[in-house]
Amino acid sequence: MISGGNLVNGVWESSKSSPHFFTKNPQNEKSLPTAFEEANEDQIQRALEGASESFESYRTTSFETRANFLSAIQKELQAHKEEILIYYQKESALPQGRAEGEFQRTLDQLQRFVELLQKGIFANIRIHTQGPDIRKMLFGIGPIVVFGASNFPLAFSTAGGDTASALAAGCPVIVKGHPYHAATSESVARCISNAVQKCNLPSGIFSHLTGASHELGSRLVSHPLTKGVGFTGSFKGGRALFDLAQKRTEPIPVFSEMGSTNPIFILENQLQTDAAVLAKEIAQSVLLGSGQFCTNPGLIMIHDPSGKSHFYKSLCNEVKGAELAPMVHSNIEKQYQEKLKELSNTNALNSFYQAENCAAAIGEVSASTFIKYSHLAEEVFGPFTLVVSCKTAEELIELANALPGQLTATILGTSSDLASSKKLSTRLQLKTGRLLFQGVPTGVAVTQAMQHGGPYPASTDPRFTAVGTDAIHRWLQPIAFQDCPQELLPEALRNENPLGLLRSINGELTTEAL
Amino acid sequence: MISGGNLVNGVWESSKSSPHFFTKNPQNEKSLPTAFEEANEDQIQRALEGASESFESYRTTSFETRANFLSAIQKELQAHKEEILIYYQKESALPQGRAEGEFQRTLDQLQRFVELLQKGIFANIRIHTQGPDIRKMLFGIGPIVVFGASNFPLAFSTAGGDTASALAAGCPVIVKGHPYHAATSESVARCISNAVQKCNLPSGIFSHLTGASHELGSRLVSHPLTKGVGFTGSFKGGRALFDLAQKRTEPIPVFSEMGSTNPIFILENQLQTDAAVLAKEIAQSVLLGSGQFCTNPGLIMIHDPSGKSHFYKSLCNEVKGAELAPMVHSNIEKQYQEKLKELSNTNALNSFYQAENCAAAIGEVSASTFIKYSHLAEEVFGPFTLVVSCKTAEELIELANALPGQLTATILGTSSDLASSKKLSTRLQLKTGRLLFQGVPTGVAVTQAMQHGGPYPASTDPRFTAVGTDAIHRWLQPIAFQDCPQELLPEALRNENPLGLLRSINGELTTEAL
Repeated sequence: MISGGNLVNGVWESSKSSPHFFTKNPQNEKSLPTAFEEANEDQIQRALEGASESFESYRTTSFETRANFLSAIQKELQAHKEEILIYYQKESALPQGRAEGEFQRTLDQLQRFVELLQKGIFANIRIHTQGPDIRKMLFGIGPIVVFGASNFPLAFSTAGGDTASALAAGCPVIVKGHPYHAATSESVARCISNAVQKCNLPSGIFSHLTGASHELGSRLVSHPLTKGVGFTGSFKGGRALFDLAQKRTEPIPVFSEMGSTNPIFILENQLQTDAAVLAKEIAQSVLLGSGQFCTNPGLIMIHDPSGKSHFYKSLCNEVKGAELAPMVHSNIEKQYQEKLKELSNTNALNSFYQAENCAAAIGEVSASTFIKYSHLAEEVFGPFTLVVSCKTAEELIELANALPGQLTATILGTSSDLASSKKLSTRLQLKTGRLLFQGVPTGVAVTQAMQHGGPYPASTDPRFTAVGTDAIHRWLQPIAFQDCPQELLPEALRNENPLGLLRSINGELTTEAL
Repeated sequence: MISGGNLVNGVWESSKSSPHFFTKNPQNEKSLPTAFEEANEDQIQRALEGASESFESYRTTSFETRANFLSAIQKELQAHKEEILIYYQKESALPQGRAEGEFQRTLDQLQRFVELLQKGIFANIRIHTQGPDIRKMLFGIGPIVVFGASNFPLAFSTAGGDTASALAAGCPVIVKGHPYHAATSESVARCISNAVQKCNLPSGIFSHLTGASHELGSRLVSHPLTKGVGFTGSFKGGRALFDLAQKRTEPIPVFSEMGSTNPIFILENQLQTDAAVLAKEIAQSVLLGSGQFCTNPGLIMIHDPSGKSHFYKSLCNEVKGAELAPMVHSNIEKQYQEKLKELSNTNALNSFYQAENCAAAIGEVSASTFIKYSHLAEEVFGPFTLVVSCKTAEELIELANALPGQLTATILGTSSDLASSKKLSTRLQLKTGRLLFQGVPTGVAVTQAMQHGGPYPASTDPRFTAVGTDAIHRWLQPIAFQDCPQELLPEALRNENPLGLLRSINGELTTEAL
């Protein structure tokens, strides 16, 4: 079913002379049979030209047309589920349950954007007729380059949240498939491509290019017809793409979601009464997906005045017998092990424990040491967490102040703990996009209220989110029409309100005609 | 009343040893008496530290508190109107009517944000209680550096739209006063400072620093505590600040509004029937404020198949007898005259006319030549416009394609012209933030529906606007609270909806309690 080729403007192209690469099964390190071709410069050029040309008509398609298109993608994915999940598991080694869950999440994400388009409120329609007649709504910004993520071959990749939100916004998408799961990516891209055809949409609105080198990504981001970029991955990669994009003659928005240590703060009484239960729950969160979640809790700040808490030991016990799938690629596993070696070799940590049978590891350090060595606040991507022990409530605040920007932060406390934690809560608001007071940060609900982003280096722009329906706003810009004749106005802005949308007219929200 | 000092965290500081500079009256080139001190590194540091500290409390002030604060600024400005306008006219040479108009516009802008805060809808409250309880709203991003603009000493400067929107967002502001009108800037800054005191707000939320060198601006943008930048001015300046900000360890949003040539397209029948009237109206727009408007129409594309239109001649006649005030500074006048000399010396233009008694000038060129020489599409800041003659409707489209990003574009046509101009309208939507079908682009209404921004190089981010109430979104980021106890939630997110705000609860807009 898959060819190893590149999808350029609706045509799967194969040229046997291209350089190529293979994907591997992390379970046994064996290569899969398909040879994937590196997209060449000509293909990049044609994909961008096709995207740019098709943008002119796609940007003004009705919300209904786009909703039907996203539904068609869902249907195609459903119809090819079995095949997709076979590739998924072979290329990622993630277990069956996770595969099923991530597949469903991908469908659900698409569904959220279908519903968003059906409601149409996201277009922020504003009509002002006092003085000049000015009518404004949001339109797509142009072709978007989406990078597949290594840790979510489905939900943050080819038909993931970036692609769904950009297509919903009326923007063509060029996916740069992640080279660790090129077969999964191609099988999903074929579904999108089928949906484009079935909906009679211009073929340039979706292309899929593969490559194992950084060059493909750099060229896509630097191309003058690219108007925006979505990326989920490492700090190094996300920052490099951001820098490239800002150096262009025309700088473009890049939303890089670059991970986070997602600190959990356990307050004094909660720690005393609940250490064992919390250790169990947090260990599960640390180990989830072999620790390969952007919201994996990598720092646990405990308020332990007596220094007698068994939390660290409980946590070690919890990860002791855990059975973990290998990480999605041996390169990622290698980087993880190197980071662990560095950490265990510094004299900074009080204790360091690594489970015998798996990659999971736990460290322990005092608050003062943590603040002294800023590298301890950096993300260790994988099933590792660092317990930071505080003697006083002031130390908790100092830790909050010392943190770089985060996707999430969590405060766990009893009612009495929380009653005196206003200062901590306020400080953490300055550092994060999502602040939790129960549970663990893994598990990011795809709702209108979700915020998955945060101050740098968690993301390159804290004003936007990568998860939830508001993710669409990364790819939208307002255009105002002044004294425009009805027939030249977009339907959504016409007097009679033919789409029945909720609009702000002279400051009042209404679905009425004008 | 003014000292020439710097306002740092609520204190006007004077140190006679600082390097200093003077402002000049463009009417007679004479220096005004006040010596303005260059802000030094220590003052920059303290201003940013003060802003950062005060942000922690200011960001959570109630919308009502902020609305009252903006009202207090209005009152102070009103009380000091006479003095402010004396400085304004001495430093800018802009006439009395313009001074009065710009002063009123500044008050009106503040009023729009007062009303926005009173309604509270801008905070985009989203509550989702199915699954984890997640509640999201917008908060300020932190201290904002605002650059005063040379061409609008009031409305786009010290208490202008950038400052008003940032203060409304809950962000402290450090204004870098424009050195061409430092006295006007200080007199306005004193009003804001009085309002801060009268409202008992933390003094760090507003500082005002002066400097004639680029160094002050660079230092402010590079300072790690700065979280955003608002700039209106030249392409060179706006891009330089943008580049500085993106190279920081933590990149920050910079909204640079860098001007535009604001093309007007006059269609065939409209040109035939209305050339004289249009020439009059457009000439007035070109000459307005001595051509120093961001939305000054610098390109007039006429569809003139016979080549016999008198439009160019009429335009020349209209500017012939015009009496213009000098430009706001001799440096700007010099740059303008140099640009004109370059243009008139190239052999590209068919005709070039400069009025004898004033700085106004008009050029004329064929469409094919215009497309050949890309420098003809660059902005000439001042009372100049270039008439571009097209023989065919296709040439109009080619011109639209050849344009860089614009703040505005205007299509003027009869009903029959407009009926066949859908393609032109579509192409221009890809190039501009505001598309007009009547009148002239100068005069930018401050309403919810206004868009004053556009694709690069008109601005550095087409997703935002510098004018109108949506300008606040440049300085806001969402924070989500998950399973947060009521008492730790911001009031706006609490179950009982104590502020009576319109909120989206599980996807439905309502003012009801939860």
